[in-house]
Amino acid sequence: MSQLSNQEVQDYLNAALEFKNGRQSTIGKDKFAVNMFFENSTRTKSSFQVAEMKLGMQQIVFDAEKSSTKKGESLYDTCRTLESVGADLAVIRHSKDEYYNELLNRNLGIPIINAGDGAGQHPSQSLLDLMTIFEHFGRLNGLKVGIIGDLSHSRVAHSDAEILTQLGSDVYFGGLNSWYTSEFQAMGPHKTVDDLCKEMDVVMLLRVQHERLSAEENQGFSKADYFEKYGLDMRRVNLMKPDAMLMHPAPVNRGVEIADDVVECDKSYIFKQMVNGTFVRMAMIESVLKGAN
Amino acid sequence: MSQLSNQEVQDYLNAALEFKNGRQSTIGKDKFAVNMFFENSTRTKSSFQVAEMKLGMQQIVFDAEKSSTKKGESLYDTCRTLESVGADLAVIRHSKDEYYNELLNRNLGIPIINAGDGAGQHPSQSLLDLMTIFEHFGRLNGLKVGIIGDLSHSRVAHSDAEILTQLGSDVYFGGLNSWYTSEFQAMGPHKTVDDLCKEMDVVMLLRVQHERLSAEENQGFSKADYFEKYGLDMRRVNLMKPDAMLMHPAPVNRGVEIADDVVECDKSYIFKQMVNGTFVRMAMIESVLKGAN
Amino acid sequence: MSQLSNQEVQDYLNAALEFKNGRQSTIGKDKFAVNMFFENSTRTKSSFQVAEMKLGMQQIVFDAEKSSTKKGESLYDTCRTLESVGADLAVIRHSKDEYYNELLNRNLGIPIINAGDGAGQHPSQSLLDLMTIFEHFGRLNGLKVGIIGDLSHSRVAHSDAEILTQLGSDVYFGGLNSWYTSEFQAMGPHKTVDDLCKEMDVVMLLRVQHERLSAEENQGFSKADYFEKYGLDMRRVNLMKPDAMLMHPAPVNRGVEIADDVVECDKSYIFKQMVNGTFVRMAMIESVLKGAN
Repeated sequence: MSQLSNQEVQDYLNAALEFKNGRQSTIGKDKFAVNMFFENSTRTKSSFQVAEMKLGMQQIVFDAEKSSTKKGESLYDTCRTLESVGADLAVIRHSKDEYYNELLNRNLGIPIINAGDGAGQHPSQSLLDLMTIFEHFGRLNGLKVGIIGDLSHSRVAHSDAEILTQLGSDVYFGGLNSWYTSEFQAMGPHKTVDDLCKEMDVVMLLRVQHERLSAEENQGFSKADYFEKYGLDMRRVNLMKPDAMLMHPAPVNRGVEIADDVVECDKSYIFKQMVNGTFVRMAMIESVLKGAN
Repeated sequence: MSQLSNQEVQDYLNAALEFKNGRQSTIGKDKFAVNMFFENSTRTKSSFQVAEMKLGMQQIVFDAEKSSTKKGESLYDTCRTLESVGADLAVIRHSKDEYYNELLNRNLGIPIINAGDGAGQHPSQSLLDLMTIFEHFGRLNGLKVGIIGDLSHSRVAHSDAEILTQLGSDVYFGGLNSWYTSEFQAMGPHKTVDDLCKEMDVVMLLRVQHERLSAEENQGFSKADYFEKYGLDMRRVNLMKPDAMLMHPAPVNRGVEIADDVVECDKSYIFKQMVNGTFVRMAMIESVLKGAN
Repeated sequence: MSQLSNQEVQDYLNAALEFKNGRQSTIGKDKFAVNMFFENSTRTKSSFQVAEMKLGMQQIVFDAEKSSTKKGESLYDTCRTLESVGADLAVIRHSKDEYYNELLNRNLGIPIINAGDGAGQHPSQSLLDLMTIFEHFGRLNGLKVGIIGDLSHSRVAHSDAEILTQLGSDVYFGGLNSWYTSEFQAMGPHKTVDDLCKEMDVVMLLRVQHERLSAEENQGFSKADYFEKYGLDMRRVNLMKPDAMLMHPAPVNRGVEIADDVVECDKSYIFKQMVNGTFVRMAMIESVLKGAN
């Protein structure tokens, strides 16, 4: 994300909005996509699938657990293989940070799209967040965006904060102090959740990722306690400004970082973010397929 | 199934028969189906896939084991997600009885089709059974139907018995007395397998579902013993009336509830049931997609 | 493979080369393929998928781990089921040697293609090897082909050696003496890897299949030792004749049977083999679909 200029971000959002408004493209006709997810996923994987099919692509079904990576084949060799058999695009999620570095400087002849690397980037999520904000406010500068939750384990917190700052908005953070590490301290101040609800244009929750917490962190963790201190309930939603947005990359932990009745409340854009995700991914795929021609 | 009127059942069967006779439909064109199977399946899952594709739908590949349900996401949130990313239909099999209740009264905007819930219903199986009987006898009333086997763990026994009674046929039961629980006692008498073979128009076997039996039940279970007392061998097939049908929802346990050479004997409609399953599912999908428009 | 005449092999290769040169076919239109892989696979499975789609087929997604084979259903019953629901072709990989014998003499009405059986045959791999050799040399007779590695556990060593001999080429072997069993002794002499590199037109490496070695074999196995004695490094590549080819069915074990920098060196045809694999599989599928009509 940090390599995108503001204009490039805007170009992606414009293309995504065009797709949302009904623009058709058959750029993927007679082309094959392979979605290589080495970590669990519902939304990102299904959204990429729909985006690919809407662009006319067909799908090579790839199951990481039953692939030759289980025989020790490297990610590069697997990707080169899929290219060789006929794939035109690889969408990859992997638990290893910056797994793509081992792919970029070698002979891979097809584009890859990063669908999430370890605790690193998740560019399609960042772009769909930006699209949802832009759709609502008509701009991405001059906004106050508060990001609440497990910043240090989040793939989106860092890139969202960085790109929003670059675009001219101000970022703030909330949640446990231990998650507010130096990289986030350098980007914006820490506030209480109540203050963030009162002052922000966008309140962005993060999922408590129990599967990424250390054993120690999980042991000391009380859901009820977290919910009381940092969770969004209707009392806090009612503190928010009239046109403020509540966002969450999902999956949500109902009753942990968000109350059950808040998930689909009027201020929530959670499922609208997912709707936009498919259009943002169409824009990304169209862009890389154009580049590959 | 119990909510369908006789006319509605007949409408489904007529539509299925039309598809079998070559009627084409592109009602699913540019639409996406997602098949969410939280339990093992070969026939139902593959049959829904073919039905969807024959109607022009494309498929979002969903693997329950690698979905965000593994991160604790609820079934409702997962379905709302798939709707948001672009699914137009969700076909769901789940181990939880009446899982659909948590979906029906909320904001889900796409139709779901129940492909089996716990020990509950399995409507597409019931409809394909009815279609196969109707195709052979030209009617669904005035028939004697004997259902033999593990009634209490079966998804089809209860709904088949109920709907056949409603349609004007008489149902009888066979197999272990302990499986002939009060709900079945209320619907029809219990008979020996030999008597059922002699008297029935339709002999419907059920699979002994070792994976659903309790540890206690499995321990006391002897395959050879079961086969001798309740299994269909050629001697029993030869007791059947000339135009009687032998049915089984499959997968079959060869040598347990059915002899090897009976599976594809002249009186067996087992694989014909599966052929009809695809057409019944086309009728179901067409119906819900029409309703959703 | 051993049942194919030289002319039949040539017919497959010609058809594959036509597809590579751009011939289109829609023989699979409105037809459904099911890829039943009971063992891990990346290249073979993805290649069959692309081949099917290029011929216009649609895919029934089948996951062996979540199929009714887990409830004890036999392979025959599973195949008959998939035929019944609408499959027109089954591509099967199975760990059982000659699994297809239980399918061939029964009522299965659709063609199957063997994508690998146990330590038995792997005909599409053999054909793509032949295609790659034929493409380079313009002939399949009068060549010297050296096969180096774990002959006894390889699905391709035996059938490649047999068909190349039948086609009029000479085969040689290299690697551990314990892998050079009597069946290979009957087909050609054993040589050192250095000698094979100097004398062969084709040097064909096999993967060390740790997952097929016995515990005892694995225990005594040293990767560094194997690499030094039998592995292809650039020194050995430089011993090869100017127009000689280096092949490997992949996945490769970099640093075991092949050096990192050899995998994509000028003499390596490893990824070209995979490219050809898709076209060979198109030829195979076209052939069986024609036969099925």
